[in-house]
Amino acid sequence: MTAAAPRVRVGVVGLGRLGKRHAENLAYRVPGASLVAACSPVEEERAWAREALPAPRLYEDYAELLGDREVDAVWLVTPSSLHAQQIVDALRAGKHVFCEKPLSLDLAECERVLAESARYPHLQATIGFMRRFDPSYRDAFEKIEAGKIGRPFLVRSQTADQNDSDGFFVRFAATSGGIFLDCTVHDIDVARWLLGKPRAKRVFAAGAAVMHEGLREFGDVDNGVAICEFEGGKLAMFYASRTQAHGNDTHSEVIGTAGALAIGRNPRANRVEIYDATGIRNECTPNFFDRFEDAFLFEARAFVAAVRGGVGASAAQAGAGASLADAVEATRIGVALRESLLRGEAVTL
Amino acid sequence: MTAAAPRVRVGVVGLGRLGKRHAENLAYRVPGASLVAACSPVEEERAWAREALPAPRLYEDYAELLGDREVDAVWLVTPSSLHAQQIVDALRAGKHVFCEKPLSLDLAECERVLAESARYPHLQATIGFMRRFDPSYRDAFEKIEAGKIGRPFLVRSQTADQNDSDGFFVRFAATSGGIFLDCTVHDIDVARWLLGKPRAKRVFAAGAAVMHEGLREFGDVDNGVAICEFEGGKLAMFYASRTQAHGNDTHSEVIGTAGALAIGRNPRANRVEIYDATGIRNECTPNFFDRFEDAFLFEARAFVAAVRGGVGASAAQAGAGASLADAVEATRIGVALRESLLRGEAVTL
Amino acid sequence: MTAAAPRVRVGVVGLGRLGKRHAENLAYRVPGASLVAACSPVEEERAWAREALPAPRLYEDYAELLGDREVDAVWLVTPSSLHAQQIVDALRAGKHVFCEKPLSLDLAECERVLAESARYPHLQATIGFMRRFDPSYRDAFEKIEAGKIGRPFLVRSQTADQNDSDGFFVRFAATSGGIFLDCTVHDIDVARWLLGKPRAKRVFAAGAAVMHEGLREFGDVDNGVAICEFEGGKLAMFYASRTQAHGNDTHSEVIGTAGALAIGRNPRANRVEIYDATGIRNECTPNFFDRFEDAFLFEARAFVAAVRGGVGASAAQAGAGASLADAVEATRIGVALRESLLRGEAVTL
Amino acid sequence: MTAAAPRVRVGVVGLGRLGKRHAENLAYRVPGASLVAACSPVEEERAWAREALPAPRLYEDYAELLGDREVDAVWLVTPSSLHAQQIVDALRAGKHVFCEKPLSLDLAECERVLAESARYPHLQATIGFMRRFDPSYRDAFEKIEAGKIGRPFLVRSQTADQNDSDGFFVRFAATSGGIFLDCTVHDIDVARWLLGKPRAKRVFAAGAAVMHEGLREFGDVDNGVAICEFEGGKLAMFYASRTQAHGNDTHSEVIGTAGALAIGRNPRANRVEIYDATGIRNECTPNFFDRFEDAFLFEARAFVAAVRGGVGASAAQAGAGASLADAVEATRIGVALRESLLRGEAVTL
Repeated sequence: MTAAAPRVRVGVVGLGRLGKRHAENLAYRVPGASLVAACSPVEEERAWAREALPAPRLYEDYAELLGDREVDAVWLVTPSSLHAQQIVDALRAGKHVFCEKPLSLDLAECERVLAESARYPHLQATIGFMRRFDPSYRDAFEKIEAGKIGRPFLVRSQTADQNDSDGFFVRFAATSGGIFLDCTVHDIDVARWLLGKPRAKRVFAAGAAVMHEGLREFGDVDNGVAICEFEGGKLAMFYASRTQAHGNDTHSEVIGTAGALAIGRNPRANRVEIYDATGIRNECTPNFFDRFEDAFLFEARAFVAAVRGGVGASAAQAGAGASLADAVEATRIGVALRESLLRGEAVTL
Repeated sequence: MTAAAPRVRVGVVGLGRLGKRHAENLAYRVPGASLVAACSPVEEERAWAREALPAPRLYEDYAELLGDREVDAVWLVTPSSLHAQQIVDALRAGKHVFCEKPLSLDLAECERVLAESARYPHLQATIGFMRRFDPSYRDAFEKIEAGKIGRPFLVRSQTADQNDSDGFFVRFAATSGGIFLDCTVHDIDVARWLLGKPRAKRVFAAGAAVMHEGLREFGDVDNGVAICEFEGGKLAMFYASRTQAHGNDTHSEVIGTAGALAIGRNPRANRVEIYDATGIRNECTPNFFDRFEDAFLFEARAFVAAVRGGVGASAAQAGAGASLADAVEATRIGVALRESLLRGEAVTL
Repeated sequence: MTAAAPRVRVGVVGLGRLGKRHAENLAYRVPGASLVAACSPVEEERAWAREALPAPRLYEDYAELLGDREVDAVWLVTPSSLHAQQIVDALRAGKHVFCEKPLSLDLAECERVLAESARYPHLQATIGFMRRFDPSYRDAFEKIEAGKIGRPFLVRSQTADQNDSDGFFVRFAATSGGIFLDCTVHDIDVARWLLGKPRAKRVFAAGAAVMHEGLREFGDVDNGVAICEFEGGKLAMFYASRTQAHGNDTHSEVIGTAGALAIGRNPRANRVEIYDATGIRNECTPNFFDRFEDAFLFEARAFVAAVRGGVGASAAQAGAGASLADAVEATRIGVALRESLLRGEAVTL
Repeated sequence: MTAAAPRVRVGVVGLGRLGKRHAENLAYRVPGASLVAACSPVEEERAWAREALPAPRLYEDYAELLGDREVDAVWLVTPSSLHAQQIVDALRAGKHVFCEKPLSLDLAECERVLAESARYPHLQATIGFMRRFDPSYRDAFEKIEAGKIGRPFLVRSQTADQNDSDGFFVRFAATSGGIFLDCTVHDIDVARWLLGKPRAKRVFAAGAAVMHEGLREFGDVDNGVAICEFEGGKLAMFYASRTQAHGNDTHSEVIGTAGALAIGRNPRANRVEIYDATGIRNECTPNFFDRFEDAFLFEARAFVAAVRGGVGASAAQAGAGASLADAVEATRIGVALRESLLRGEAVTL
């Protein structure tokens, strides 16, 4: 951590629950970054920013923030439907851009952003697949790179949320893109990342609305399973669920010719085990927010380090985030899974 | 354990590795059973029987054993291709029959045996899906029956063997039926059993010959993945592998609306953990033979108890084995998986 | 397993809960043994034997059984206060003897039996420290022998029972010898066995009657802790409890210069894990009886093999049981622990 | 996190490895704190501070820093032998003080600091027993407070370091106070904290120099075991080791009348499990530094919040650190353990 390169001046856009966390990380916990601006159309959120952050310039409107010449990078934590255009606008304004996933639910729009971004090779543009920065996923990645499990050929990965009896995601179903684009997209990125970015060639998906029947009118399910065949005989299996009893259970496995790695097999909340008349148990991570607290921080550090030219980060970390191209591929596979679910057939990519 | 009902006089057929184990169990560890006969065309195996077993009558030929009027039940541990006809012959000879899986790799033959067996309702006919008798699988089954996880809707199950660099199964590939009929058939039976015997409606399978390329000429793979959709929105995911580094890793999960159960998540060899410079580890079960040692015994006890009319076994145990109808369904699904693998499409049943 | 050496004709003495288990093992599951006689003063127990066992000769009186010339070995599962004299009587009658622990709570009596037994070197005399035959303890022992953890220098071991609100052991306190002689004696034997039979030189113990105050009048406690210093800088720590909420929790650790082994750290009942709103848990072994079911069987096999001169058992198993001298040492240490508890001082041996 | 109360201006004293970590935390990660000064007699350390910290005033001499009127609190990460006097000097200078453990190895000196501190009740004075701020230890504490395990009566706790073949601690033995005052003091504090601060009444300790014989001339050991009896029938068992093969293994258990809690039973480095030919394993935390990374941060936040009158911290966190009185008690027990080790007798307090 050195002060040699200039600090990256960041403007955060969107101050909902996740936006607040990113803002605090960027303000207080990322060496080399200064949180200089924040943007939200919601007065309560701007009031929070005045209290909690170190005096950023506050904007109601994204265009105004893009006009702030003292902002080097924008950090988008906005509704998914806005992401694509906001990324393009940021690049056109000459700013590095970090954007929460997804890039877009629409494949054509994804391609358009990717094409546009090619005109700005000097600007960082990263999509927030934060699992890549979770210390355990990172450790697995490095062990694979070091050949510890031979040649990896199969990933099994799941995103399984604790059941929300309020059914927030049911109301959200019309715009979420469905369980595969909303949840499994993380697992798709993990699979591509850990398997060496193979190209997908065929997928099959199935699912059921087990507890939330309201999903059916949207063609969505609360539990979905899928297989993805990649070129070169590589494979992935995915499971996504909105209905777990025990907590958020995000785990992944990578199987290779000389061994395997499991990441997060027991989603333990901490290091405590409870012994009582029911047996021996551990409590579980309640949600992805707590599970990936460190990952959100480390992805911010890596992004800032990448903008600064690798200053302050290991080579492995700088630039380790998902590129726009990675995000396009994840969306392509996710769209195919949704199509397979709806049609009841395998879909060839 | 009472001597009230007469002992069941058993003749074991086939004295290979697994046959020997069954023979010893039946001879020494199954109350209510007497091992009175054994049949093998191999002189070494009959010599072993003379030494190790309590003086059974020894036959070279199956027909001779069927002619032994002092035999009540036959126990078939013979090559798979003989099973179907041997079962029919046993029933026609008036004998109860226990047969190792598979019933047959040919669906039409399965149906023929099923039809024939309907003529002998007073005779037990069971296929050896021993996982149903493993104490942990049994405990899971009972917890589900008691409603502990609400309504079960998804099973994930795998049969994963330690890599055999000799590639025995490659030479065996021509007659094994392929990985799904040879291995996954156990997981299929587990899924049907734990989900309440739903009907399968569609399957999809994929796979790769990752380490044993010789499998390709048989249309077989050494790692396979599959999804099975059942009626009523129930689902199963399967994984089968011949190439694990760490041991035989047989595990299953059942997910319900109020909780989930995992059976054998870590295939620990015993209760020892080893602390050394590489970390903390446990060794793993080397093969299914050791993993299911107790299950082989308990399935023998349950079969004998069922023959004796429930004498000497809990109601839960007697008759808990897989019926011929169960075996036919497992084969039907396994055949569809093989077809899906070969065609690269989902297959509707 | 061969029939070359003659079968060992065993008479079991005492048919309470544990006696019944031993009897069934000897009758049905121990190659090379024949259970030919059983002795109990209780008619119900003899009635059970007539039903459940293969027609043993039944005696009410121990002396009668000793007079049975067709009995080669006696298996004592009688009240502790009878053990010493019954062992001596058996040896004098020319019979091998297996006796449940403890040899005696009185050290002088222990010494007397040891001296007497020296006159019968051709007869097996073993005390039932069954942990030595538990497959996991056995595996740990063999790994230590093979040098896997370097030089072992510290054992931590515990015997912790699920709380019995009936307080059976309170009524039993007058004759149990107290928690260290009743429970910890197993851990003492484990420590000596795994550390290479070092001589104890000093002990210290403390404890409290946490839930069962009735123990105080007997100078006993329901939770006790202790340290034992052996010669050569070897150490042991013990914990004994009658008040666990989660089950019987018997575990041991051995720490060496190059690693450590933990045996039974989580006393899981089986391979099932339960996921629900309270987290992820496993149920625990309810009592030592279930925990050591296999060990009781294997110790019987080893004893019979030893009597037969190693026939039918690996060299490692035959004669691996605790000798009378081992039992005397365990009692010596246990008596010192009790004395330390009562006096509040370290006790030098 | 609010800016209402003024920021606490902190001066850190000592910039060795742990001092650097504290300095970075205070500089960047503790809301409400400003790191305004740093003190070290070592030029390299001050140079580091110039680079890595946000422009603190730098001092070579502690007295100078105490003279800085813009410093509200000092943070001592200095050699143990200096702690006592530096704490007194800080209080006399009107500054809050946080000091790394131990307060002092000399009990009389401890008492003197305690007496002196009583004259400054408006100043915070905390000793850095960081385990109290580890999220898992904190969770256990809160569960106990909530009555989840009934009445806690026994703590088992260990501090076990990975073997350092360099034997740094051998050279350090002359001044470390020995293994019980250097390592076990943490476990003593944990035991008192989790058991409700009972008074110790008797201790016994034993140990051996298993791998580092050079310790003997200092009366020290590389593996030590101990028992502590508290009033009211409460108990503690301690283990300290310098010679573990697998990593830093810090764990604690609390046993109560209705259940038990284990904290850190498997010192897993992260959420990765490795499957290979040796079994299934996890790597372990290499040292206390990594194990307690979060705890060091949270104790800084709690201290700062306490200074600010609870602003920015939950009631539970503010003031939750070990008081000087707690540190005196821990030292008293640690001194008694050392005495017991040397004399080979129990020591009454």
